[in-house]
Amino acid sequence: MKDIKFSTEARKAEHIEICLNEKVTGDQITTGFERYRFKHLALPEVDFSEISTVTEFLRKRLKGPFLVSSMTGGTETAHGINSRLASVAERRGWAIGVGSVRAALENPDLAYSFQIRKSAPSVPIIANLGAVQFNYGIGADHCRRAVDLLEADGLVLHLNSLQEIFQTEGNMNFKDLLVKIEKVCRSLEVPVGVKEVGWGIDGVTARRLQDAGVSFIDVAGAGGTSWSQVEKHRSKDPMKKRAAEAFRDWGNPTAECIREVHEYVEKVVIIASGGIQNGHEAAKAMALGADLVGFGRTLLKAATESEEQLDLRFEQVEYEFRAAMFGIGAGTLQALKNTDRLVAVRA
Amino acid sequence: MKDIKFSTEARKAEHIEICLNEKVTGDQITTGFERYRFKHLALPEVDFSEISTVTEFLRKRLKGPFLVSSMTGGTETAHGINSRLASVAERRGWAIGVGSVRAALENPDLAYSFQIRKSAPSVPIIANLGAVQFNYGIGADHCRRAVDLLEADGLVLHLNSLQEIFQTEGNMNFKDLLVKIEKVCRSLEVPVGVKEVGWGIDGVTARRLQDAGVSFIDVAGAGGTSWSQVEKHRSKDPMKKRAAEAFRDWGNPTAECIREVHEYVEKVVIIASGGIQNGHEAAKAMALGADLVGFGRTLLKAATESEEQLDLRFEQVEYEFRAAMFGIGAGTLQALKNTDRLVAVRA
Amino acid sequence: MKDIKFSTEARKAEHIEICLNEKVTGDQITTGFERYRFKHLALPEVDFSEISTVTEFLRKRLKGPFLVSSMTGGTETAHGINSRLASVAERRGWAIGVGSVRAALENPDLAYSFQIRKSAPSVPIIANLGAVQFNYGIGADHCRRAVDLLEADGLVLHLNSLQEIFQTEGNMNFKDLLVKIEKVCRSLEVPVGVKEVGWGIDGVTARRLQDAGVSFIDVAGAGGTSWSQVEKHRSKDPMKKRAAEAFRDWGNPTAECIREVHEYVEKVVIIASGGIQNGHEAAKAMALGADLVGFGRTLLKAATESEEQLDLRFEQVEYEFRAAMFGIGAGTLQALKNTDRLVAVRA
Amino acid sequence: MKDIKFSTEARKAEHIEICLNEKVTGDQITTGFERYRFKHLALPEVDFSEISTVTEFLRKRLKGPFLVSSMTGGTETAHGINSRLASVAERRGWAIGVGSVRAALENPDLAYSFQIRKSAPSVPIIANLGAVQFNYGIGADHCRRAVDLLEADGLVLHLNSLQEIFQTEGNMNFKDLLVKIEKVCRSLEVPVGVKEVGWGIDGVTARRLQDAGVSFIDVAGAGGTSWSQVEKHRSKDPMKKRAAEAFRDWGNPTAECIREVHEYVEKVVIIASGGIQNGHEAAKAMALGADLVGFGRTLLKAATESEEQLDLRFEQVEYEFRAAMFGIGAGTLQALKNTDRLVAVRA
Ligand SMILES: Cc1cc2nc3c(=O)[nH]c(=O)nc-3n(C[C@H](O)[C@H](O)[C@H](O)COP(=O)(O)O)c2cc1C
Ligand SMILES: Cc1cc2nc3c(=O)[nH]c(=O)nc-3n(C[C@H](O)[C@H](O)[C@H](O)COP(=O)(O)O)c2cc1C
Ligand SMILES: Cc1cc2nc3c(=O)[nH]c(=O)nc-3n(C[C@H](O)[C@H](O)[C@H](O)COP(=O)(O)O)c2cc1C
Ligand SMILES: Cc1cc2nc3c(=O)[nH]c(=O)nc-3n(C[C@H](O)[C@H](O)[C@H](O)COP(=O)(O)O)c2cc1C
Repeated sequence: MKDIKFSTEARKAEHIEICLNEKVTGDQITTGFERYRFKHLALPEVDFSEISTVTEFLRKRLKGPFLVSSMTGGTETAHGINSRLASVAERRGWAIGVGSVRAALENPDLAYSFQIRKSAPSVPIIANLGAVQFNYGIGADHCRRAVDLLEADGLVLHLNSLQEIFQTEGNMNFKDLLVKIEKVCRSLEVPVGVKEVGWGIDGVTARRLQDAGVSFIDVAGAGGTSWSQVEKHRSKDPMKKRAAEAFRDWGNPTAECIREVHEYVEKVVIIASGGIQNGHEAAKAMALGADLVGFGRTLLKAATESEEQLDLRFEQVEYEFRAAMFGIGAGTLQALKNTDRLVAVRA
Repeated sequence: MKDIKFSTEARKAEHIEICLNEKVTGDQITTGFERYRFKHLALPEVDFSEISTVTEFLRKRLKGPFLVSSMTGGTETAHGINSRLASVAERRGWAIGVGSVRAALENPDLAYSFQIRKSAPSVPIIANLGAVQFNYGIGADHCRRAVDLLEADGLVLHLNSLQEIFQTEGNMNFKDLLVKIEKVCRSLEVPVGVKEVGWGIDGVTARRLQDAGVSFIDVAGAGGTSWSQVEKHRSKDPMKKRAAEAFRDWGNPTAECIREVHEYVEKVVIIASGGIQNGHEAAKAMALGADLVGFGRTLLKAATESEEQLDLRFEQVEYEFRAAMFGIGAGTLQALKNTDRLVAVRA
Repeated sequence: MKDIKFSTEARKAEHIEICLNEKVTGDQITTGFERYRFKHLALPEVDFSEISTVTEFLRKRLKGPFLVSSMTGGTETAHGINSRLASVAERRGWAIGVGSVRAALENPDLAYSFQIRKSAPSVPIIANLGAVQFNYGIGADHCRRAVDLLEADGLVLHLNSLQEIFQTEGNMNFKDLLVKIEKVCRSLEVPVGVKEVGWGIDGVTARRLQDAGVSFIDVAGAGGTSWSQVEKHRSKDPMKKRAAEAFRDWGNPTAECIREVHEYVEKVVIIASGGIQNGHEAAKAMALGADLVGFGRTLLKAATESEEQLDLRFEQVEYEFRAAMFGIGAGTLQALKNTDRLVAVRA
Repeated sequence: MKDIKFSTEARKAEHIEICLNEKVTGDQITTGFERYRFKHLALPEVDFSEISTVTEFLRKRLKGPFLVSSMTGGTETAHGINSRLASVAERRGWAIGVGSVRAALENPDLAYSFQIRKSAPSVPIIANLGAVQFNYGIGADHCRRAVDLLEADGLVLHLNSLQEIFQTEGNMNFKDLLVKIEKVCRSLEVPVGVKEVGWGIDGVTARRLQDAGVSFIDVAGAGGTSWSQVEKHRSKDPMKKRAAEAFRDWGNPTAECIREVHEYVEKVVIIASGGIQNGHEAAKAMALGADLVGFGRTLLKAATESEEQLDLRFEQVEYEFRAAMFGIGAGTLQALKNTDRLVAVRA
């Protein structure tokens, strides 16, 4: 049991390390945002300073429709990252997720590294667990404990099939997960969501998740961080290392996921994430049907540096987002979501 | 007040400097002219020396349908540029615009740098002001003064929303401008036009401007000078500097603007500009629906050098323009505008 | 007669040499697999370890739908390659072909280099002859002898028109081959198949081959090894050398061949080959309609090194293949072949 | 008059020089052959050695449907080039054209450089004149003299509008040429054709030429030698030099021209030329509708070297051409022209 715990910690540290220093994006696959462009409105008839981006998530108010994607925890470095992310999320009114809380369930000594409620008293915090764990001894009780540990406003379950099979320690049995997800949705007190980790959730799957009682879906599509690439860098098994390479172009582009999911679900909050690089792309994501936009790896570097850097990064995203709204004359999120000014680029 | 004046002058000088020496074009965006090609007519049945390009603008005769786009004024260097542009425009029969006259309204000492009537006694001169200024104290009277100062034949109001928000000194309230534009159109003695500065005017907006009484529309589309890129180079604010970068592909391609505006308006003179590089592209612009073609930054270098260089540049544009007409057998501007020999390139 | 034998041996050695060390792929032609992508299924509901890939070919059981493409024989080096390929094919349950057996028919001393039954007692072995030889003295009896010599489970006849004309020793008369193929199909005791060598078999031709009684078709399409390129490297005739260059983009892309052949035939086993690089592409081939997938040149390097290297290569292909199945939630070959999750990539 | 003669000679020498040593192809324009590919026929049922390519042109027999495009004359170097081209054309049974004979009409001393009948007694020889000369003093009598001087089997009139306007000495009046071409067609004893020089003839123009009595049309399309590029290198006028640059992508792609002309005319012999690089492309040209295929600049280097080099080049083209026919199972030119195996490449 010690070994497992140790390996989980080591893995988390390696993930950060690799995501900061290696090429972890895919190849010959893009988010698809480059296939859309906003049609500029020369006469916006809007006062930039009055543009409103406030919204709500998990019954809390957000200053903008933004989310720090689930990333880390379980180590001292991760604690630092989470703290900085939390403080800045609080200050700027973003929702925030943390990495898989399994490490803390296994080893309570690690819980502190996920506990950011003090730094982020007012914004939504989301706990995170791998759905596949439901086939490996984790159940609704653990979920509840994870939420409680973090004083979280919701729980997101991640689906990461291909990551599991390319990592040495992978849990490869994904059978019957939907019914187990359904059970957790029913028994938990807080809203439960589902996310991918960079290969995307398609429309049909989103529909099935909605029917299972999921409250929000984070598409976490392809075009950004590719977890076969990340695990390729980590792997000591030469066969898996090379095999991972053949999946560098795998996945459903983020923009396509948003469109599809938006078409297939009605009641579920749609979070766009996966390779979103700036507020301009975030605005495209909203115009394609998203309710919130998540940022992962692109925040990582600033999050290891300082709150100042991180604040600047958040501010930049917000400014770009509002600039895009201004550019098409959208004064509110509703106007952005209903715009007819996002057009497909002639190929 | 001094400071504002001073900063306006400094800004103008920096704009010239940056446009001459930095990469100020966008990325992953083009004018769209490359998507069209003229279908060569092997047997043109035209005498090249008889090709006619004469036309009329603002009730004056032009030797060709060409315009020097609004660019500068307010400094000694600008004065030199404007003088050279004016002399050559006069000699070759082009219309000519100058940069925003606001500096001269604020500080009469700077008026001389815009006053080019002596160098260009017979061709149309166009005064220029930012439409957003109507929300910052400028009104019809200032417009009239601007026209009078320059002995101009018309006034063009520029729309530059995204430039304003990426520059430190930006005026960001674009509310209710249309009614104010309408008022100016009604009260001025000379024709009033509207232009963008490189992100383009779409069909619907053009229609609304026509309905407001505008006499001419300069689409100033994307694919050439990008003002977010220019302001990126100028900015001292690191956040805005980086944010501007995310808009390097923003805007409506010039060729698309022309087609759209041509479709949406009837009574308004259409000026094509934005990244037009030579007379061949100018001819495409006309075949797409333009009445006149404007050239901005591509004239700048020659305009800082000498009248000879500038004259050569104008002559080259004219020759290319007539060569394209010859290549499709169009002996008159009317024939060029009605040609069915501009075809979309198979992607 | 000696010379001919000698030249055949020399040719075979050169082929190996060139395929290992020169650029032998085409130019401006691809397999077409890049035009398809699997739509990721975030919730596969499959246990990776239970994925089944067993199948049958030539009445024998295979652990996966994989085939070592016909490659070599006739020299000592070839013998080593064939032995290693055979041992690993046996161990991992792949079918295996050898290169053209003509050399052994001409010179019985060379037969040993093709005889791999001892190393591969239980998997299907396929003998190989050029169909064009039916116009140069080879007949059904020779075919039978080839099968017997190898204790093979089937015979495949290759079609290689353009290779023949670019190689100095080429047999260029391809007349009336279909009726001769038909005769061989009727008179042989084992199933007879037909394959190309890298330019592909189209739907109409496949249909005609089915009607002639062929049991399996290996499309051997374009995008991988190009035999005009190989012969270009070998040729001493400067004219043919240069002429071969003009065919570097010739051929029917493998993915297209599979689709077409799948549409045109019903009873015939379809083998996909030609430039297939990994198990991910192999899975695409199956989803497009193939029953088996062949690998040629990409196995060659490992086959000259060691059984260990080769085994690793086979294992990698299998793992990638199962990973792709897992990624779309296909637990069986049947599910993979019937999937609707292979989608055309937006161009 | 001396000067003109001299300048004509000098020009011809420069053309050769530039075509041999400079980049004279266009930019962002291609012949369009890359947009088509032959669908390989794995079972051609043809004997390569029996493939027949014989045809007829200007009432003479050709061994293959090939033509040496009009290129040169008027200088000693040109004489050497023409002699070598003629000898090899005779030996291999190709038709042959020479450059504009105007120089010889102006100065009989230069006639020898065009007179190749001795070297090419049996194949069709085509005299050449610029159609625009009909507006500059040349008439039917000169045409007759040109044909007589060369003992030619036909005359081709070239259309080169854009070349004329980019060269210093250009004749720019292209008025009323069609009626004059018609007159020449009526009054000459030999068949008269029309050609472009690298910008292509479209369908409508071809139809008008057919109606005017033209016997053959050489499309001479874009994608190969660009005469604005050639004249750019020659020009001493800096304005024209730069202006020429803007036409580097001008013209109708050769493949498009063939298709269009084939659609618009019935009685006229269609010659494909313009950037055709090898026999593979020549076969595509035939499948698109051409009756003959012309080669220009790609022969030039070998033509300045030796008959051996030139012969090798011709042989290579023929071999590639027959290889393409073999590859699709076409045993005759008729089969090639009627093939349904030339397919558009998916973009
Ligand atoms: C360092 C790192 C660690 C991550 N860890 C988790 C995790 O524990 N749980 C999870 O659901 N997603 C995890 N993710 C995935 C992200 O939440 C996100 O879905 C993915 O990275 C795609 O977004 P991006 O391209 O903006 O990075 C992680 C991402 C990164 C970069
Ligand atoms: C140095 C410079 C200064 C400019 N200043 C003004 C201005 O004051 N007012 C205005 O309406 N447009 C201004 N413009 C925009 C141009 O009029 C034109 O719309 C734009 O540059 C796109 O055309 P181009 O790509 O040919 O440069 C300026 C452009 C340049 C290059
Ligand atoms: C070295 C080598 C030798 C080959 N020899 C033969 C042969 O004798 N008979 C045959 O039918 N195909 C032969 N082939 C063709 C292969 O079977 C296969 O169809 C072709 O190489 C395309 O597959 P690939 O791209 O995976 O290599 C040979 C291929 C290679 C690389
Ligand atoms: C050096 C050279 C000289 C040429 N001179 C003539 C000429 O005198 N008359 C003519 O009709 N075409 C002339 N051409 C044009 C060719 O006949 C042909 O139409 C053109 O070059 C396009 O074919 P290519 O791309 O194969 O060179 C010349 C071409 C070259 C390369």
